[in-house]
Amino acid sequence: MVKPFLKALAGEAVRPAPFWLMRQAGRYLPEYRKLRASTDSFLDLCFSPALAAEITLQPVRRFEPDAAILFSDILTIPHAMGQEVRFLEGKGPVLGPFDPASLQPVGGRLDSVYEAVRLVRRSLTDEVALIGFAGAPWTVAAYMIEGGSSRDWLKVRQMALGEPDGFGALIDRLIEATIDYLAAQVEAGAEALQLFDSWAGLLPPSGIRRWCLEPARRITAGLKQRHPFVPLILFPRGAGALAAEFAEIGDCVGIDTTADPAWAAGAIQDKAAVQGNLDPMLLVIGGTTMEQAAREILFTLRQGPHIFNLGHGVLPATPPEHVAALRRLVREVL
Amino acid sequence: MVKPFLKALAGEAVRPAPFWLMRQAGRYLPEYRKLRASTDSFLDLCFSPALAAEITLQPVRRFEPDAAILFSDILTIPHAMGQEVRFLEGKGPVLGPFDPASLQPVGGRLDSVYEAVRLVRRSLTDEVALIGFAGAPWTVAAYMIEGGSSRDWLKVRQMALGEPDGFGALIDRLIEATIDYLAAQVEAGAEALQLFDSWAGLLPPSGIRRWCLEPARRITAGLKQRHPFVPLILFPRGAGALAAEFAEIGDCVGIDTTADPAWAAGAIQDKAAVQGNLDPMLLVIGGTTMEQAAREILFTLRQGPHIFNLGHGVLPATPPEHVAALRRLVREVL
Repeated sequence: MVKPFLKALAGEAVRPAPFWLMRQAGRYLPEYRKLRASTDSFLDLCFSPALAAEITLQPVRRFEPDAAILFSDILTIPHAMGQEVRFLEGKGPVLGPFDPASLQPVGGRLDSVYEAVRLVRRSLTDEVALIGFAGAPWTVAAYMIEGGSSRDWLKVRQMALGEPDGFGALIDRLIEATIDYLAAQVEAGAEALQLFDSWAGLLPPSGIRRWCLEPARRITAGLKQRHPFVPLILFPRGAGALAAEFAEIGDCVGIDTTADPAWAAGAIQDKAAVQGNLDPMLLVIGGTTMEQAAREILFTLRQGPHIFNLGHGVLPATPPEHVAALRRLVREVL
Repeated sequence: MVKPFLKALAGEAVRPAPFWLMRQAGRYLPEYRKLRASTDSFLDLCFSPALAAEITLQPVRRFEPDAAILFSDILTIPHAMGQEVRFLEGKGPVLGPFDPASLQPVGGRLDSVYEAVRLVRRSLTDEVALIGFAGAPWTVAAYMIEGGSSRDWLKVRQMALGEPDGFGALIDRLIEATIDYLAAQVEAGAEALQLFDSWAGLLPPSGIRRWCLEPARRITAGLKQRHPFVPLILFPRGAGALAAEFAEIGDCVGIDTTADPAWAAGAIQDKAAVQGNLDPMLLVIGGTTMEQAAREILFTLRQGPHIFNLGHGVLPATPPEHVAALRRLVREVL
């Protein structure tokens, strides 16, 4: 039997719609907070196969989604390349100075991630698919160059638009590392992959095409050479109408909170599955407000392949019982 | 003779395209910084008619744009309603606690803004149009409720989506105040108006329609009742493909940096003029990179009404000579 999530990625209009949530593991779950409190550093969780696997499985036990996504972070690659990465409580990631000359090949430094994939895959039932992931080169480069999250992202935007040759060299290295990273996740047991381009919306259209779409194309091509059948979900957050161009490349396009599902049905679903796009704030609010919005998304996208998800990650303030209610609703809408 | 800027707003494909830039007055100009250093508070500049008029005219003298936009701020309305508003160096606006019960009618508290409009209008040549503006209710409410700029804007999003009745009451008050404010700017000499909805992109599609599009519709209707011929530019930043729906209401839609001009030509230009959308970072970079991008925008939008502008405001790091070069280029492309 093919898992419902993988059927939708293959282009089938599966009912009820397969369900999972970006950041379904994490801070809003008490069992996660307990585990997090027992370790000093967030990256220790990512690089401990047993802990990463356990955190990946926490929401699977609670909500029975159609897919588990490996618990990890998009900054594992710069860390493995030798740039310092730390996570400060309430401040997000803080990276050491960016020095292209000192970046190293990744080598075996991500092996513990693949071990976590193996552990999770062994624990999943025949119904639940396992998603591997990576940050897209543009978004990862943005953190590497800014040294963390930024209000205006001026440095990386200036570099991308003003020094495209130097910036392109970094993107090339990230493309190669990402292909290796994702291919190894597939070899360890990941059945689908998602590429998170959380900051695509910082670029003008020409920049989105050059630094987000083209790397996605190369990563997809490189992966499909090694693993012809592994499906790829692309999530170019903030790309607006350009999200439709990602449907030419990926098996599925994740749409963000601002995207109109009716637009996505017309612009994307004949070429790729659509994943999304309930506003995470509605999951904090819950009740009929959340349920009406979820029903409308399900109704609008029901004619084609659709994977129900949020338009961005679960917020820490989310009551877990709202997730349970949403999960029930999605299962009941046929 | 009708001013070129107003011709474009009336739907004519004017060549060369009329030119102005959002935040064309401000921190990147040495003459502004000099004037700013002579006053304690940013709001003093906005509320001193002579200073606001002088700042408005600084870029007009330098670059001869086709329009001047009144130097002011979108937070004049909450300030006039009695909520404390201060601007801290490098931190942006900081507002006092939001208390709907203590908000007052605006009364005559914005008269100095209208006086600035009168002063500017008297100083402009027959070629240059004067734009008045206001923040759109959603964006102004966002600052009022968050108490300033925010990383996640959780409070206002939660209120808009979770307590729509209470939030709607605030939006209603802002709609009324905005109509009065913009109508008075027209009576003082503004020849066109722009409504800045800088944070439209924080909302899901249903939220954009309810809290951005519908208020824009009511403000436009209220204004056209008093001033049937004044053209309105709507700028719903981050609205993605939904920007096209604003073309049903406004005479012109400002598109942000992520919008593809080819998409805007098809989706907007048969209903309204398009304004935009060079990435402000390209104006920092300058040179052929900037010029090629500007030419492409001009070329793509040349068949319909187009006002050349940025996709967001001028950045403080912008060299004024790049603005002069851009101005020359736009004048030369026919």
